Amino acid sequence: MAHLREPLENGEECGLPVALEVMGERWSFMILRAAFNGIRHFEEFLGVLGIARNILSNRLAKLVEHGIMQRDNCRHDRRKVEYCLTEKGVDLLPAMLALRQWGEKYGLGVASNPVLVDRRDHLPIGRIEIRAHDGRLLGWPELQWKDRSEVGQPDREPAELLRVK
Amino acid sequence: MAHLREPLENGEECGLPVALEVMGERWSFMILRAAFNGIRHFEEFLGVLGIARNILSNRLAKLVEHGIMQRDNCRHDRRKVEYCLTEKGVDLLPAMLALRQWGEKYGLGVASNPVLVDRRDHLPIGRIEIRAHDGRLLGWPELQWKDRSEVGQPDREPAELLRVK
Repeated sequence: MAHLREPLENGEECGLPVALEVMGERWSFMILRAAFNGIRHFEEFLGVLGIARNILSNRLAKLVEHGIMQRDNCRHDRRKVEYCLTEKGVDLLPAMLALRQWGEKYGLGVASNPVLVDRRDHLPIGRIEIRAHDGRLLGWPELQWKDRSEVGQPDREPAELLRVK
Repeated sequence: MAHLREPLENGEECGLPVALEVMGERWSFMILRAAFNGIRHFEEFLGVLGIARNILSNRLAKLVEHGIMQRDNCRHDRRKVEYCLTEKGVDLLPAMLALRQWGEKYGLGVASNPVLVDRRDHLPIGRIEIRAHDGRLLGWPELQWKDRSEVGQPDREPAELLRVK
């Protein structure tokens, strides 16, 4: 299917190994999920996740080191420390939800509970999908690898179409 | 932010732990990525991934056991075995691409090479994003957790609106 292949030998030109360096193990995503559910304190993470203290400590430090969470003194009680998602951490939400929806489809057979909904209409979010630059849905058979040097940019397309006319 | 919280103590009602049971470690995604690049044979995976033989063997067996890849005899040479993505495996593409794009944004600073493009216009795919049921883009501040019993379905909405009129 793919004529051109990614250079799998090294990860220098692919974002996936970069992402997996920090997110490529189960606890990172479970901690992230707890953070998206409003958990902020070490003891809370410990209680809800059923994770060993030293592993939690290690994983939180790694998430902080990679700028996915930040470690602050609690506003209400300066002796307490809290861990919050940074913008970089919040940006992992599409990846987390894509995994969650895949797990729902193939593992649970029903939607996870609770459901993530749009605040505006209280309806469940749509499926995380692959789309073209203009919003068309794309499946794997409609995709192809191409070298960066041969790839145009969507912005240029309308101008080029005008020129052809 | 979240008034209602996911039951983090157990994973019985969430798709994420289900997904992480098999995909929650670095090599599973790296093998998947190789498969999306047309790699099919054990020795090829071994060569391109730089993975230890016993770990590759273990991970491929797990992916087969979970129905993400299937193990077949090669059509051209019956003595050879090949590993192909199933539909369940191909359905992990949005999650893999969301992670890859996140890695590009925060790790590489440039688009990965090669680029995944739409076969039709050879333009790069769009960002993997969270959308409402009607296609509107949604960010984290526009989202909320809700118990499944309180959540309506998009399909019912038009009928209900008609009835109100």
